[in-house]
Amino acid sequence: MNDVRILKIKKSVYENNDLEAEKLRGELRAEGTFLINLMSSPGSGKTSSVLRIIEQLRGEMAIGVMEADIDSAVDAKTVAAAGIPVVQIHTGGMCHLDAGMTRQGLETPEMQGLDLVILENVGNLVCPAEFDTGACKNVMILSVPEGDDKPLKYPLMFSVADLLLINKIDTLGLGIFDFDIAAVRERAAAINPSICVIEVSAKTGEGFDLVSDWIRKAISRF
Amino acid sequence: MNDVRILKIKKSVYENNDLEAEKLRGELRAEGTFLINLMSSPGSGKTSSVLRIIEQLRGEMAIGVMEADIDSAVDAKTVAAAGIPVVQIHTGGMCHLDAGMTRQGLETPEMQGLDLVILENVGNLVCPAEFDTGACKNVMILSVPEGDDKPLKYPLMFSVADLLLINKIDTLGLGIFDFDIAAVRERAAAINPSICVIEVSAKTGEGFDLVSDWIRKAISRF
Repeated sequence: MNDVRILKIKKSVYENNDLEAEKLRGELRAEGTFLINLMSSPGSGKTSSVLRIIEQLRGEMAIGVMEADIDSAVDAKTVAAAGIPVVQIHTGGMCHLDAGMTRQGLETPEMQGLDLVILENVGNLVCPAEFDTGACKNVMILSVPEGDDKPLKYPLMFSVADLLLINKIDTLGLGIFDFDIAAVRERAAAINPSICVIEVSAKTGEGFDLVSDWIRKAISRF
Repeated sequence: MNDVRILKIKKSVYENNDLEAEKLRGELRAEGTFLINLMSSPGSGKTSSVLRIIEQLRGEMAIGVMEADIDSAVDAKTVAAAGIPVVQIHTGGMCHLDAGMTRQGLETPEMQGLDLVILENVGNLVCPAEFDTGACKNVMILSVPEGDDKPLKYPLMFSVADLLLINKIDTLGLGIFDFDIAAVRERAAAINPSICVIEVSAKTGEGFDLVSDWIRKAISRF
């Protein structure tokens, strides 16, 4: 598994991240590459959700994945094992990605000529929400064991997300976690009325047909 | 529950956080107040662990809690309901606390004359590890649903923690999460050979007798 590219990110040279993000989005549109920025807490199921999306969509489009982490290449190796082009981005201790860093990932040989690129951001419910990566859509995951109060505590993340995946719903019936899905939907909608919410289980695959439909529709409108 | 103090933190005026943290630690030692900095991902069980520690130690020492959050006072209200002095620190979008911010919390009327103060840091496995709060000990939580690969991905947090609580162990026997405790212990020890690891369930209370013993011993050596 030594064929995973590990990219050590340099600090973005662009002072105005928002401008840079808009520029990147324009270039992606021109190239016909749809970029999804996937954000969540550590351990919410980003990588396993990416694998489920790949499973659903690999037959109809060319997909690549960029894995951002402080350290290690654990997730990139998992994705590479699925036979998908992947690049590991090491942020050098940084807690988020900005548009300049994202561009460095997109310029690698592995990420050329793709229809869909999924950027798995650093596991962090705070900082990644503050930086526009240039992605076409922001997707976030909240998993059942994390609790239903998260929209109240991390409102910015819920406000920048286009799609909220509520993951690990296979644990709901077990009665081990207090998690009120209706309350999460209400709290998320209060922050972001246009947010779309899909309940999924990356473990069983439940709900990822709906996620794939959402992605297809978003690509068709891009 | 309107009696919870909400403190809007100003940016720390101290340029050198490490010096300020050392100064704060010296003052805490002189005052006989032991400060614990509790860190984890969102939803790992910080507040419920705080409640378990309170349950164990409230009969023998005066305890206070500082709850740091981007927004809301959910956790502070939970702790206040237990009849414990509490202050809610709003970080104004900041993803961590530094020593200057911690000092602002400690200077509130609620935090005076206490033996033990627990600072519940912002839910974030990245940034809080970078800033010494001035606490006497750093405690971190990793919960079973987050996965056993976290020491590989967030090594700095594991390197600054004196005590690692592995929480939600009540879910281990259910076979819903792949989580190898021995692997976590090994990975954490490889990063930080002196880290102490205790397996707990904030839900059932299991293991918090050991956590309390650890705290008593740490206080006696301070």
